Amino acid sequence: MIHKLIIIGSGPAGLTAGIYAARAELQPLIIEGKKPGGQLMGTSYIENWPGVSRILGPDLMMHMQEHAKELGCSFVSSNIARVDFSTKPFKLWTQREQEYQAQAIIIATGATPNLLGCPGEQQYWGKGVTTCAVCDGALYKDKRVIILGGGDTALEDASFMTKFTNKITMVHIKDELTGSKVMQKRVLDNPNINIIYQSTIININGDGNHVTEVTLQNQQTKEETTLETDAVFIAIGLRPQTEIFKGQIALDQWGYIKLTDQTKTSVPGVFAAGDVADFRYRQAITSAGVGCMAALDAERYLAALE
Amino acid sequence: MIHKLIIIGSGPAGLTAGIYAARAELQPLIIEGKKPGGQLMGTSYIENWPGVSRILGPDLMMHMQEHAKELGCSFVSSNIARVDFSTKPFKLWTQREQEYQAQAIIIATGATPNLLGCPGEQQYWGKGVTTCAVCDGALYKDKRVIILGGGDTALEDASFMTKFTNKITMVHIKDELTGSKVMQKRVLDNPNINIIYQSTIININGDGNHVTEVTLQNQQTKEETTLETDAVFIAIGLRPQTEIFKGQIALDQWGYIKLTDQTKTSVPGVFAAGDVADFRYRQAITSAGVGCMAALDAERYLAALE
Repeated sequence: MIHKLIIIGSGPAGLTAGIYAARAELQPLIIEGKKPGGQLMGTSYIENWPGVSRILGPDLMMHMQEHAKELGCSFVSSNIARVDFSTKPFKLWTQREQEYQAQAIIIATGATPNLLGCPGEQQYWGKGVTTCAVCDGALYKDKRVIILGGGDTALEDASFMTKFTNKITMVHIKDELTGSKVMQKRVLDNPNINIIYQSTIININGDGNHVTEVTLQNQQTKEETTLETDAVFIAIGLRPQTEIFKGQIALDQWGYIKLTDQTKTSVPGVFAAGDVADFRYRQAITSAGVGCMAALDAERYLAALE
Repeated sequence: MIHKLIIIGSGPAGLTAGIYAARAELQPLIIEGKKPGGQLMGTSYIENWPGVSRILGPDLMMHMQEHAKELGCSFVSSNIARVDFSTKPFKLWTQREQEYQAQAIIIATGATPNLLGCPGEQQYWGKGVTTCAVCDGALYKDKRVIILGGGDTALEDASFMTKFTNKITMVHIKDELTGSKVMQKRVLDNPNINIIYQSTIININGDGNHVTEVTLQNQQTKEETTLETDAVFIAIGLRPQTEIFKGQIALDQWGYIKLTDQTKTSVPGVFAAGDVADFRYRQAITSAGVGCMAALDAERYLAALE
């Protein structure tokens, strides 16, 4: 069986693409993966989905999934292990070597924030530990926050947090910041941002409900100290989920999918949307918007094939 | 008083920009105009807002407006009559010459579909009369539909509707189609699309609840005929709302705002989002997504000014 459209991924980009594709009678198959729903599944309340003051991230994703199902999207819960985009129809194989074929593909596999892997990180995920200052910054007005990292994202997060609080500490593993000079200067000039160099977080502690402090370790002296905080923003990079697409479509030096003309990858008929091609905005609503664009572009591509 | 950010327009793009800008502490002023809410205010039920199976367009916009207000957006209900983007801060004047100043601007004034102006058009708006096949096409499965127009949008709408029904009639005022050759061929080759040339609709009739027929007039013979139909898709172009920006920022030949690097206009500090810069997707979710991008871009622009 050759599908008209297969969508890989089931976050806001993949599900919105599915909703639009189903309404355009493309009978999309959504390969949602073994952990469906994307990054919002690991969040608590979100307050920036337009029109909804406050909703649990997993609830929003459940609504989108139900919407996609009602409209006739099919779902497969496997992960894709490899693809062949060099011949048509395009071919995809799951980890168990189940083969799928499609005339058009939308990649919406997202990106995964790099994590510390230290004790407490998972326990307090969404309870003070977060990877998105734009999303969660407003929750920490006049609170103590730690930004972990020293690159552009960490510098932007620190700068962004100065709107809300003057109790900001950056914790960076190196002995100098690594982001752009402009951003470095903005952070270094700001008296409300304290920077602890050559250190990392080895433990995130809390009261059971929320983060209360972290244990820092100096990388040279191995000395350990504790620091009270209300939030830990982990800003040590993201990995776009593009391993299986290497050699098949053009990626940039960080592994993000290169797009032209909004949603088109380097292979005609293969489109992409969401964080897998976006390191700049990374919001549910931007991913949903671009997911819609990818579906409409795929629809036009398929109409031209007929 | 100099505002950090003024947003002109209050459809999905403007309000989502407001929601994100308010959360980033930019205290945005939204100039919502005398007819707030954008094109969705003229719709009935919509079924393609991700996560919501079915909602009245005006209700969705009311939720977004409430969300923006809760987060601290200010609203002004005037229309802007002229702007000066040549000096900083940027200046805007209402029709009554009230002046506003801002360090950054997001233009989200939308586009207005060209209408016929014939009897019945307003009465049956959202009750069979529509301007968006992608939005409303699925409502007319196996129904009779008329597409008014002969350019690319009309051809795309006709082609799109073949997914749902084989009772499609195009009504075009000229004696030949005017869209791209590829699209023309696709439509002309399709036996399910009938084309009536040199004609227009002079009356839209219904049973009080919904469209039932139209009166056509041949432009040469002036002969009038009636044609039964369940829907009239008006596809005779859109006017982006950019009159007041002429000479201030770069527009394309059709009057749409030219964007680079996602949301940037030709004037640094002036951003745009939604249908005012998008003739291709024109969906609430795409406008909302780009509205968010514009707010994040404006936030970064303002942070760099400090």
